[in-house]
Amino acid sequence: MIETAMRRAIAASAAARGASSPNPAVGAVILDRDGVVIGVGHTQPPGGPHAEVMALRAAGDGALGGTAVVTLEPCNHTGRTGPCAEALVDAGVAAVHYAVADPNPAAAGGAATLRDAGVEVVGGVLEAQARRGPLRAWLHRQRHGRPFVTAKIAATLDGRIAAPDGTSRWITGPRAREHAHTQRAAVDAMVIGTGTALADDPSLTARRPDGTLYPHQPRRVVMGLRQIPADARLRDGTSPFVHVTTHDPHEVLAALPDALQVIVEGGPMIVGAFLAADLVDEVHAYLAPTILGAGAAAVDDATVTTLTRAHRFRRESVTELGDDLLVTFGRATD
Amino acid sequence: MIETAMRRAIAASAAARGASSPNPAVGAVILDRDGVVIGVGHTQPPGGPHAEVMALRAAGDGALGGTAVVTLEPCNHTGRTGPCAEALVDAGVAAVHYAVADPNPAAAGGAATLRDAGVEVVGGVLEAQARRGPLRAWLHRQRHGRPFVTAKIAATLDGRIAAPDGTSRWITGPRAREHAHTQRAAVDAMVIGTGTALADDPSLTARRPDGTLYPHQPRRVVMGLRQIPADARLRDGTSPFVHVTTHDPHEVLAALPDALQVIVEGGPMIVGAFLAADLVDEVHAYLAPTILGAGAAAVDDATVTTLTRAHRFRRESVTELGDDLLVTFGRATD
Repeated sequence: MIETAMRRAIAASAAARGASSPNPAVGAVILDRDGVVIGVGHTQPPGGPHAEVMALRAAGDGALGGTAVVTLEPCNHTGRTGPCAEALVDAGVAAVHYAVADPNPAAAGGAATLRDAGVEVVGGVLEAQARRGPLRAWLHRQRHGRPFVTAKIAATLDGRIAAPDGTSRWITGPRAREHAHTQRAAVDAMVIGTGTALADDPSLTARRPDGTLYPHQPRRVVMGLRQIPADARLRDGTSPFVHVTTHDPHEVLAALPDALQVIVEGGPMIVGAFLAADLVDEVHAYLAPTILGAGAAAVDDATVTTLTRAHRFRRESVTELGDDLLVTFGRATD
Repeated sequence: MIETAMRRAIAASAAARGASSPNPAVGAVILDRDGVVIGVGHTQPPGGPHAEVMALRAAGDGALGGTAVVTLEPCNHTGRTGPCAEALVDAGVAAVHYAVADPNPAAAGGAATLRDAGVEVVGGVLEAQARRGPLRAWLHRQRHGRPFVTAKIAATLDGRIAAPDGTSRWITGPRAREHAHTQRAAVDAMVIGTGTALADDPSLTARRPDGTLYPHQPRRVVMGLRQIPADARLRDGTSPFVHVTTHDPHEVLAALPDALQVIVEGGPMIVGAFLAADLVDEVHAYLAPTILGAGAAAVDDATVTTLTRAHRFRRESVTELGDDLLVTFGRATD
């Protein structure tokens, strides 16, 4: 029962990805005395209620004597919102089960506060699953002090992203593109180079197949020294535009202090620069069922000279998206 | 019951791949009067018995009044062996179920012969499945007059087959290599270019992980104009060596009149030449979880200049092989 509720809490937290930053994407479920789900919630954008409060509001009086199931240890500090541990005590829940302990010293201590108030507290419920879920990017930032970086590649079977004449629309099909936009809608920023910005004039917005915008839009980040024209789509105001005049990926990430996850989308030298700097935590490779045999390669990294220096990853998932395949990879060693 | 037997016949026929050429890789199962499997067989190498005869031998007297289940319509002609239709009649089977009708005019008519002898004959049992199975290459040769061509690519995620310094062992892992050797053991010939032959001095044999040879070895075919040294591994006599002094893939296939299936293994220009000639029926892409960002590309085809001219395939299967992924593709339009 608790594990089922935790799975539901993890699923609910996905809706907070991107929008909750710099706060973690947390999910919470409230069960009444009989174990019936009476409230589900996820972290709201900064300044809004946390997941526990959202779930408690949905549950109402039924929370009294019930159980709260939360993906992250309830916070203990008063920031823009009151501490969640206190809200849970006030609601009269008898037990709190959480997946991941809060590694953030400023917020931790929620479990102790709850226990002091006589609430039964159990940590570590489906912890591994929760760590791999929507909490992943925030946990990464807590540990490494920088955003979780996803490199996106959309290429032919032979690793090409454009034909010799420069044509590149569309190498992957509509389902792959739709999936890529759902990913944009769940992160804090998209990073491209000035070359791609000038050649393609992309909008970098997160759109549904019908062209409408998702509620959350990532920041649009361009790295490189060349100027971006005033009439570029990137400057249309749909979401913030950030130009970081550098070739150093570390400086790009430093310019995004609130970001939990960014997607690096290209071109090949930008992906190569993040790889060379060992800043790629995940690769999303969309592979089309085509072979070009000529044209630009997906990744350009002049620092690799011999096979033992190749960038190694570990396969995490394979998903069929229409004619294309999405293969995701994490770091070979965590 | 019949379909279960047909699945078993298809599975049994896999052992004949490569070894039976130029005859088709056929499988046969004999059921007794009660539907119990009493004989299973597959086509032997040329001059040896066909699948039906092998299954009948295993079945013995139990075949009387029983049922034969065969992947291909039993042959009606006397070649190096007697006609299978006659053998089935002589054994006294009451019924014959087959998957695929024989398209070969010299051998067809087996069904009619059986019916004339009072045997119940049913065709088309699991036909689509049988056509995709071990019969595929032979059916392809009957229809197109040339072998079924598989292009093998073993590359990094970004389509590279070697680092800038030329190092390429091993991009894929042991399970992928083991799988590739099982494929060699099931085809008639491996094709490489003189460049690969001279650079790598490969043996092109089909080996088990312990280094021992599979019973069936493909012919080792080199295309191109440069000479292959007398002490090259390709000339060690393990299996026939064929040097076709041409750059034209059509001439290579014409030099293999008995071959049902060949694997084109590289280098990049050889794969590109087969693609440009529209001679690739299937692609086996072994993808390693690595990114090089530099080095030779898996395919080099200078004839593709724009995206609409890309070689399009249709994904057929995805298999996890240790850290690597095998993705197979067939023609986008058959």
